[in-house]
Amino acid sequence: MRVVNLAQKLALFTEHFQPRTVGEFNGHDLMVVKVKGPFVWHTHHDTDDFFLVLSGHLTIHLRDRSVSLSPGELFVVPAGVEHCPSAEEETHILLIERRGTPNTGDAATAAARVVV
Amino acid sequence: MRVVNLAQKLALFTEHFQPRTVGEFNGHDLMVVKVKGPFVWHTHHDTDDFFLVLSGHLTIHLRDRSVSLSPGELFVVPAGVEHCPSAEEETHILLIERRGTPNTGDAATAAARVVV
Repeated sequence: MRVVNLAQKLALFTEHFQPRTVGEFNGHDLMVVKVKGPFVWHTHHDTDDFFLVLSGHLTIHLRDRSVSLSPGELFVVPAGVEHCPSAEEETHILLIERRGTPNTGDAATAAARVVV
Repeated sequence: MRVVNLAQKLALFTEHFQPRTVGEFNGHDLMVVKVKGPFVWHTHHDTDDFFLVLSGHLTIHLRDRSVSLSPGELFVVPAGVEHCPSAEEETHILLIERRGTPNTGDAATAAARVVV
């Protein structure tokens, strides 16, 4: 039970697409992540994917359209929906997924779970 | 699957302690709420309680201490832990709870679920 300052957590690392777990909630990881450039197309079959932009601008490509998020905007990609997050400039995100979800949709290529 | 602008949703209402549901995520309600003054002491026995301050300052009283949150800071009250949120000035929060959770911990006194 600690207060989590998201900016302080984001200042602890520089890597892109390497989420850091900052808390837990009902079996989910609360994560901050820095995004720049395109990620990989992937699907989470057993969890929705929560994105809240803290700074920058995020595009989430879906197979039939794309959505653009600015700071203070959130989007939930439902379980089973293929998506590809992308950002032209470095963008900071609060990400929530069920604990143990591989960020790439594939345990073989996923970033390790790192708690900060 | 819509982009949710939290400030736009908050502009739709003025009531305090009356959460508005702005989205859904893995069986949870994503809510915005305006807080001013003290709420009631209550406990959620079957869900953690996620608070992220968007503007203002929130104090969450626990029975053994209090925590203070500024914008960009989050706190999770674990299930079963009695708490009382309070704010001196109007404060805006992103709140996440399992769908159907009474905001007061008691269905008889809870605010109605309102989707905006």
